[in-house]
Amino acid sequence: MPKVVFKYFSIKGLGEGGRMLLAYGRVEFEDHRVTEEEWPDLKTQTPFGQLPVLEIDGKQYAQSLAIYRYLGRKFGLAGEDLEEDFQIDQVLDFFYDIRLKAAEVFHETDKELQAKMQDDLIKNYYPIVLKKLDDIIIENNGHLAVGKLTWADFLFAGMYDCFKMVLGIPDLDEKYPSFKKLHHTVVSLPGFEEYCKNAPMCEF
Amino acid sequence: MPKVVFKYFSIKGLGEGGRMLLAYGRVEFEDHRVTEEEWPDLKTQTPFGQLPVLEIDGKQYAQSLAIYRYLGRKFGLAGEDLEEDFQIDQVLDFFYDIRLKAAEVFHETDKELQAKMQDDLIKNYYPIVLKKLDDIIIENNGHLAVGKLTWADFLFAGMYDCFKMVLGIPDLDEKYPSFKKLHHTVVSLPGFEEYCKNAPMCEF
Repeated sequence: MPKVVFKYFSIKGLGEGGRMLLAYGRVEFEDHRVTEEEWPDLKTQTPFGQLPVLEIDGKQYAQSLAIYRYLGRKFGLAGEDLEEDFQIDQVLDFFYDIRLKAAEVFHETDKELQAKMQDDLIKNYYPIVLKKLDDIIIENNGHLAVGKLTWADFLFAGMYDCFKMVLGIPDLDEKYPSFKKLHHTVVSLPGFEEYCKNAPMCEF
Repeated sequence: MPKVVFKYFSIKGLGEGGRMLLAYGRVEFEDHRVTEEEWPDLKTQTPFGQLPVLEIDGKQYAQSLAIYRYLGRKFGLAGEDLEEDFQIDQVLDFFYDIRLKAAEVFHETDKELQAKMQDDLIKNYYPIVLKKLDDIIIENNGHLAVGKLTWADFLFAGMYDCFKMVLGIPDLDEKYPSFKKLHHTVVSLPGFEEYCKNAPMCEF
């Protein structure tokens, strides 16, 4: 059995989907929640100065999407062919685009500018892209791509609480019920009870 | 023979690597350079309101990384196994992180703030990440990953002129000769002469 360590901060964010994929794949892993104190030293030892990092027998895997794709393909959660893999990749890159725009506003320290940016997204961006994402999930039978459970769904479900927070849309669950439903589909999969029971709680 | 159309603006940016991959794969394709006049109408017909879009017999493929990965795997330019594919994905996500930081500053309209942001990147960010990228290329035998030519190299080479422009580091070629060398390796591959001769010129 290889020694597996998953390193990420004690939030869901870009890491929870990875932990969930490992739990789903029945991999025993060390769930290393990196503290603020540890981070400066650890940062210099990671491939790109970022988390999450997946370590398998000392070999480091970095970049959330790359890690999730790797685990997804390993655990039979990828597409059946190149076309299906493309569908998964495409929708996740789109999802990351939305997340990135939201995060940019969320992290803006100038409060006045932040309000202006958020107002612009609420009026001109979110209605289009969130509707699109909603359509995609509905078209795909409640999943992100290819009409069935793939690693993309784990990424979405793991990040959903964080996604809601950075979007700053309080009634997101009601506006787009497909999002909440997809989250529920994944966290209700058999085998997650134990992971959820033992994982440290974190809100987003 | 399927009808293939590659749609992108008349710049290299996020599209040139895709055109190069198609040319390398000996695919006859319509190189549709989208004009400013065309864009508003076309935008609503794309999967996510963005370019590039690859169209194969009317089916649309969007998101640059997803398109390039798909073409790379199709043309035998991917890894030999999951580990190698991971190496490719990881380094490209890292490269996109750098590009994104640079583009954020490049597109900042407040000139004073822009200068401050650029100063911060030049002092605290670029020396670390560009050195890292340089090390990776040197370790990989002049390539981005797995020690040989992969679709990652096409993405890098196609974007290099644009990357240089948004970074705003005039002596980039001299500071990190591995970058220029990798660009040269790709554009010197057999078969590119014809593509380069016929493609509209664009600077970045």
